[in-house]
This record gives sequence, structure tokens and C-alpha cells, in this order.
Amino acid sequence: MPFYNSRETLVPEMLSAMTQTLALEELETSEGTTVVVGAASERDPSRVAIISGGGSGHEPAHAGFIGEGMLEAAIPGEIFSSPSVTAVLEGIRHVSGPAGCLLVIKNYTGDRLNFGLAAERARHEGYKVETVLVADDVALPGFEQPRGIAGTILVHKVAGAAASSGKSLSEVAEAARHAAGSIRTIGLALGPVQLPGDAPDLERGTELGMGIHNEPGAKTISIESAADAVAQVVESLEIDAEHQKMVIMLNDLGGCSVQEGLVLTHELIRQIGPSRIARFIGPVRAMTSLGMQGFSVTVMPAEDALVAALDTPTAAPAWIAPRKVKESPPRTKSRQTDQRDTAMDVSSGNHIEERVRQGCLTLIDLKADLDDLDRSTGDGDAGTTFRAGAEAVLADLDAGTLGFADPAAGMNRVARILETRMGGSSGVLLAILTTAMSEVLARDSNWADALGAGLNAMMHHGGAEEGHSTMVDALAPAFRTLDAGGSLGEAARDAETGARETAKVAARAGRAAYVPDAASIGAEDPGAKAVAALLTAISRD
Amino acid sequence: MPFYNSRETLVPEMLSAMTQTLALEELETSEGTTVVVGAASERDPSRVAIISGGGSGHEPAHAGFIGEGMLEAAIPGEIFSSPSVTAVLEGIRHVSGPAGCLLVIKNYTGDRLNFGLAAERARHEGYKVETVLVADDVALPGFEQPRGIAGTILVHKVAGAAASSGKSLSEVAEAARHAAGSIRTIGLALGPVQLPGDAPDLERGTELGMGIHNEPGAKTISIESAADAVAQVVESLEIDAEHQKMVIMLNDLGGCSVQEGLVLTHELIRQIGPSRIARFIGPVRAMTSLGMQGFSVTVMPAEDALVAALDTPTAAPAWIAPRKVKESPPRTKSRQTDQRDTAMDVSSGNHIEERVRQGCLTLIDLKADLDDLDRSTGDGDAGTTFRAGAEAVLADLDAGTLGFADPAAGMNRVARILETRMGGSSGVLLAILTTAMSEVLARDSNWADALGAGLNAMMHHGGAEEGHSTMVDALAPAFRTLDAGGSLGEAARDAETGARETAKVAARAGRAAYVPDAASIGAEDPGAKAVAALLTAISRD
Repeated sequence: MPFYNSRETLVPEMLSAMTQTLALEELETSEGTTVVVGAASERDPSRVAIISGGGSGHEPAHAGFIGEGMLEAAIPGEIFSSPSVTAVLEGIRHVSGPAGCLLVIKNYTGDRLNFGLAAERARHEGYKVETVLVADDVALPGFEQPRGIAGTILVHKVAGAAASSGKSLSEVAEAARHAAGSIRTIGLALGPVQLPGDAPDLERGTELGMGIHNEPGAKTISIESAADAVAQVVESLEIDAEHQKMVIMLNDLGGCSVQEGLVLTHELIRQIGPSRIARFIGPVRAMTSLGMQGFSVTVMPAEDALVAALDTPTAAPAWIAPRKVKESPPRTKSRQTDQRDTAMDVSSGNHIEERVRQGCLTLIDLKADLDDLDRSTGDGDAGTTFRAGAEAVLADLDAGTLGFADPAAGMNRVARILETRMGGSSGVLLAILTTAMSEVLARDSNWADALGAGLNAMMHHGGAEEGHSTMVDALAPAFRTLDAGGSLGEAARDAETGARETAKVAARAGRAAYVPDAASIGAEDPGAKAVAALLTAISRD
Repeated sequence: MPFYNSRETLVPEMLSAMTQTLALEELETSEGTTVVVGAASERDPSRVAIISGGGSGHEPAHAGFIGEGMLEAAIPGEIFSSPSVTAVLEGIRHVSGPAGCLLVIKNYTGDRLNFGLAAERARHEGYKVETVLVADDVALPGFEQPRGIAGTILVHKVAGAAASSGKSLSEVAEAARHAAGSIRTIGLALGPVQLPGDAPDLERGTELGMGIHNEPGAKTISIESAADAVAQVVESLEIDAEHQKMVIMLNDLGGCSVQEGLVLTHELIRQIGPSRIARFIGPVRAMTSLGMQGFSVTVMPAEDALVAALDTPTAAPAWIAPRKVKESPPRTKSRQTDQRDTAMDVSSGNHIEERVRQGCLTLIDLKADLDDLDRSTGDGDAGTTFRAGAEAVLADLDAGTLGFADPAAGMNRVARILETRMGGSSGVLLAILTTAMSEVLARDSNWADALGAGLNAMMHHGGAEEGHSTMVDALAPAFRTLDAGGSLGEAARDAETGARETAKVAARAGRAAYVPDAASIGAEDPGAKAVAALLTAISRD
């Protein structure tokens, strides 16, 4: 069941949502139904009023297109049913001034007749009324009464721009008729929609030539991909026969995801060719058919006057401005290198290399123990991950591409090695730690300050605090000891103590936080154990 | 299968669609991945650059929010996967000027770590970088690491407005952190989504507390209606405990129809109360989870500074401007009456009443014959419909509420009777005919001119031409005869001839046009027969 309350309340609820949040007003007809009109304060009686409407279920059409530069009133019927003559007539009376009004009518018998009779009655009452019929559907070539579907929105826009510029009723009607005569639309959907309260129709599959009232499409098809769907639509629209640039509108029939809309946009541009598209409108949900998972494509020749009318700004909230299409995506190459990274002194420095080497060997030895510890709360690869990092650092030491004559540069190189070759969250966290350490070391060679900065960065970005059963529980005591003037050996002992404490608490951060507490109590955190062991190893002279 | 090509091509296709149609550029990283950045021509190095990103599958987040007043760059990962440290770092290098940059990070381990390390590296390279973490999900109360979900968009907006106004990096970061600390969001969905290439997961149903990566919700629920869904969300958000006005954002997780979005909007406004909502944003597809049929609601206290930041215009195409909510929909009563309709002279006039009465009696007699004729192409109710119209006119004649002393007024009254009491398309078509006739008769009493105008209106609005096997085939010959100076009797005979001709052709208009030709050949069109019989009856003195 979709997010509806009931079929009976659907239309009034939608209208209330729109009128409460947009510059719209509800007009109560003598029948108790509702006509949606623009805010009275924004009405200009010297301008031709554009009026549209039809069955509901096509939202945001039509009320979402009310606003300066498009519609002045929308006459909604029940779901997929024409509004009454009375509703149309009372809408005309309400918004038409001396300049008159234009009714934009989709070519369905009910709409034609009810809007038509309302037009006759309004004329009889002295109103100036013109009508324009939209029949843009090309699903059935040669059919005498093509349906009016999504292209109607472009007719609204062209008519609205003409009215907004102060043109007379006959000029506005002429512009709208020219637009209506210029458009072709076809729809494609993966299946029908389920009306509120109706049983799902499981018989129908993918169809080409969809209307917007859940009527069967012109033919049942099968599609292999988005590219295939677009190819069939492009073929039906006979786009190859167009000899001028085009305006293309991609209309989501209501059930496409944003991602599908973008893929379809990509395919349309690719298959038609960006140079042939003067304007692209969409993906937009302009004329929907409830939640139908399908789309329609409308083509209009890019005549200057039409494009100018489409480009004219409007206050209508559902209108999506036409976009120019770039020939090809400009793809800039990024600046890849850090100037400070390139000038590294890899000459041997103050025995740090040997300490680091011992630390790495220790972590490699611990591989099996750490994997075992990781099995209770993780996927048992902590030892493997730390070994990978250790081996990578060792390899660079052995190759002479890592040295600590400049401790800041050395630490930064370690960070890059861990970032790219260790893997796992631990690799990134240790890269964060060592990068921040390097930053401090570049200013002075105080290792306690450096570890403090690294620990802070690790906690900040990793989100763990002390006591959460992570590497922090070993590093934090070590930092405090160093910061208070303790030796590296004392700091390592405090790290070992901190690591052992992690066996007594439930994990609160990292992946282990997502498993039941019982699983993480009793086992030392492998990360804490690893860094404690590392500190112990490098503290040995 | 949704409208995709393949999982592998999904992200580059989406990025290409966005960069080809929007003011965006693609930056190729040293790893070959893509970072999306604003157009270089629009970049202002004196302003703080807001950068965001994360896994793809949440479109339009984040690239759709690039534009003056929001983001400067978006770093997209693969579907539901964090982007790499390299991609983030190269994005920072590309768009950060002397004013520095702010990274807006959703609280997921991968995003935290990769953006965090990139931030540390960028600082190490000399860039000014701040980070803000968004953790707005309240699905698991008391959870230490809430996820960052749709509220992230509001943080982008607040940060972007601060940057746009020329604030310093620390001020922009402070504004963003305050916004991030002010928001709460919860999601609800009717089921999981299917990732491209994955099998559908049929086990999961409706869940409350959805993330945006298809992970299971906090709990499985059942909902009765849209109202119920909104009630559960409102309860989880503890909206009743809010002591100030709120900003409410309704975010479609990707699979809601426009209609569902409007119903949910209606329910949110109704249940929270319009007076408590300072701004309503949506329904908007801002942070989606592919095509998930669900929604999230974000609440932010309506502090002046936050509201002002949200109200600031932005060029970001996916941003939907916040709306004020009206207390209750203003519902204007329409003007129901036509002044010209009220002053009717119902005194008897020139024997027209008697002719009309005979016409009505004839149609009542023809009921069974017309129903029979209608069975071959319609639902066999043509006679019933014509009889209903005839009986309604007779009733008004008998009641003395219809007269023809003023032929125009009489014809207009007939039109109203047919419109409201005859039914069917025929009723509306005859109302159109008679309304247009009345309009001519008001100017002069030439019945031929009146019939011509009525016929034109009927053909124009109904869409039928002569030869389409409709009422037109009887009325058009009658009009020509009258127009050439023939008598009403001659006109009626020509109408009868025209009606009989309809048996020889296939229907081309009206409902009968939708049945196979064979079904409509051989039977006289019941509408044509009815109007011919009517003319014959009223032609008798």
C-alpha cells in the first residue's frame, strides 16, 4: 500500500498540501469541489489568464504550474476524471479579467467537452475565451485524436510567457496553438500503476506509447537496459528526421528514481547528440500518472520564439528551467602532487629506522594472535591488516625510500604507506595519526606533542574516546606518560596496561560496537594490543 | 529491472548527465575517479569552499547541491561506498583558496576516516581545512554514533549561506556545527531497495528508522495509512517536546510518487499544526537511497539565524526553497451565478414551446430504438440518455420555468437543463450546441445562423467532422439547407438522409471510433438518428 489515506480523500489532501505551502488559493465551487487559483494579490487583470486542468493523478500538473508566467488557475477533477463544466466555468469567472482567458485542454473527450461547454457558457456571459487543444502523443501514428500528455506543460509555458509579456488573447492563443502543433511526445513504462483501492494488475509488462490514465500502451515491448528503452523512444519520436536543433523534455511518469532519471538523461543526450539539443528540460516530474515507473520524452523544434518563451523565468514552483547541454563533459586533470612530499631526505637518521624496523617485525609476529582476538567481534583479519602495514613499511625501509633524518618527512611517508597499502579502518586511522604527528614534527621535534596531536586527530575523525575499547585505550595512557616527562619505555608499559583493560569493557566504537556487548567483553581489543606491542618494541634500545 | 544500464556504469553516467546539463565540471583524480566541482568561472577564492560527498546512490546529493550559496565540490564514491582519501584530497586542492574549506561529513565510519585523513593531509600541505560531522538520525535513541542522513542538506545550506556572506572559515564551521547539532531526522520505508545487479530482498517489510544505505531499519512496523506513517515518524522525532517553531523537511527517499509526497505533506502539516511550522521544505528528493519507497522527516528549531540561512537564495539546482505554511487553506466561495441567466422571461412565445414539446415526446418514444442501435458500438444507453434530456426539458416546460418568448434565453435554459440533467457526452455536446445557438440568438433571431454557430462549437469542442458518423452528420446537412433559405421541413428531411448515411461508414469520432470498423458499419448512428427525428418533429406545424 502506498502512502495514501484513501481514494476519496486523495485529491483534497493533495490540494491542501499545495495551497498551504505555495502561493495558491482554493476556490470552492457551487458544487463543493475545488478550483486552485493563484494568489489574488498577484493577479493582473490586464493580462490574459491561462487556465488548465483535467483529471487529478498527474501532479504537479496542473496546480504546481500556477504562478506568474504560467497558469492562473487549475481545475482538478477526481483521479483520472475530467472536472465538471461548473468547476471550469467558475474558475474562468474567478480569474478572467478584461484581457480574457485561454483554456489549455488535453485531448480527451471528457476534457474537451467539459472545458468546451464551459468556454461557450463563459462567452455567453460576456467573457473573452479562447481554447487550445494539446494532442502531442505519437503512440498511434495516424490516429485522428492523439492524446494530450506531457507536452502540455510546454504549451502552458509558451502561453504563459506570451500572456506575461502583455500580448492579446488572440496572440496568446496563436502562440499556444503553434506550440501545441510543434510538440510530439511518447511514453514508456515498466508496468501499470495501482490506483488507490484497486488490486494490482499483474498482467501488464513493459509498454511503449503510454497514456497518463493507466490505459494500456500502444504496444508491449521488452527492454534490455536504459539505453535500449531510450533507443525505442527516440525511434518512435522520429528524432532523426528533425532538421533543426530540438528542445527535449524528459518527464518522469512518477515512479522513476533520481538515479534512473539521470541515467535516462545521459542516454538521451548520448543518443540524440548534445549538439542537436538546444535545451534539455528534466528529468522532471511534470505530468505524472500516479507512481508509474516510466517516462515520456517530448520533442519540440528549437525555434527562436519557442526557446525564448521556455527560457522566460516563471514563478510556477514545479517548472524546471531548460538547460543548455554541453558538448562533452569538461574533465580537468587534478593537481596530483603535494610539493612538500617530493623533497624527502631518505638518509638514515638517529636510529629511528632500526626502532621502526623492530616494531614492524613485532607486528608481523603477532599476526595470528591478533586475528584470533578479532574473531570474537570482527571478521578475524586484524592481524592480517597490521601485518600488511608492517610489511609495507619494512619494504620501503629496505628499499631506502623511507628514512627519518627528517622525522616529519619520515612520518608523512609512513602515513602514505599506511593509507595506501595497509587497508582497513586501522590503516586509515594510523595514517591520520601519523599525518597529524608529521605536521607537529615539522615545527618541532617533540614526540610527545606529536603523539598528542595524532591521537586527537584519530579520536576526532574516528569518533572513539578512551574506554571505547579501541587503539585509543593504548595510545592515550602512553601519551599522558610521555607528556608528563616519562620515558618511551614507561609509556609503552602504560599502553600495554591500557590494552589489557579493553578486555574488561564492551566495545563502544568501530565495527565491534555493532555486536552484542558479551561478544566484546573478555577479549583484548586487537588494535589496542597491536599499538601497545608496537610501542614496546620501539622503546627497546 | 529499473532503467539502468549496469552497476559499473551507473555512477559515471549519472555524473555525466549532471555535468552536461548543469554548471558543473568533472575533475579527474589521479586514480581515474571523478570529483564534481562548480564551474571554475563562478569560483570565488576569497570565500570558504564547502565540500561534501560520500557514497553515490543518494542523488541529487551531493553534486546537485553545488552552486553559489551551497557546495563548491562533491566527492562521489561508488554506490553506497565512501570516496577515497585521494579523491577528497584532490577535491580540496582544486577548490580551496586562501579562505580555506569546510568538509561536511556524514557520520559513517568510511566517510569519517577518508574525509578525516584527507583533511589532515590537506592541512599538512598548508590548506586551511575544517570538518563538521552530521549525525542527525534519531532511529536508535542513545546510540553513540548516529548516522548522518537527510539533515545533511540543511547543514550544507547553512554552511553555504555563511560562506557566501563572506564569513571566515571558523565562523562558517561554527555555523555548520550549530546547524548539525540542531537537526534530527528519521526515515520510514515500505521496503528495501534493489541495488543494480542484486536480487530483490523480499523478506523485509515496512521499517522505521531507515538509513540511506539499505541497511535494515531500527524496527519493523506496520502502517495503516499515510496518516499512521506520519504519526509514527512525528512520535519518534519527539516533536511535541519542541518549544519553538520548527523547520520541517520532508525528504522522499527516492520511490515516492508526487501524489504520496503531497499526502505526506498534508499529514505532516495537519499533525504538527501549521502554526508550529516556520518553514516547510519539500516534498523534495534531496538525499535518496536509490528508489526506496520511503521518506524521512527532518526537524530543526526555527532559530532566526538558521531560518535566514535557509531562506538565502542559492544557485544549487536541487535545493527547494523553504515555504511558509498557511494556517488554513483560504477557501473562497466562487461567484456562482451568471447575471444574464437570472432574468428569464418564461412567458409563452411564438409556438416554439409546442414544437419543442413534440420533439421531446418523439425522443422519448425513440428510446428503445436508439438503445438498440447503440448496442453495436456502445453500451446501449443512447436512447436512455436522449430520453433523460427530453424528459428534463418537458418537465421545465410543464412547470413553466422554460419558455421561448426570448429565444436566446430559452435556448440558454435548455442548455443548462441538458448540461445538468441529460448525462453522457451527448448531453454536453447538445449543451454546447444550444449555448452557442443562444449566443447568436441574443444578437438576432436568425435560426440558421444560430444552428451554424452551434454546430461549429459542437464540432470544435467535440472533435468530430462530417462523415465521422455522429450527430454532426444529421445537423450539417440541415444547417446547409436552412442557410440556403430552405424550410425547416426541408432541413429535417436532409438531416434524416444524413443520419441514414451514417450506417454506411465506420465511426471516426466519439466512443464508437474505438471499436472495430465492422461493428459500426451497418447500424445508423443513434445520435444522428435522434437529432434528425428531433428536427422532423419540431418542423411539423
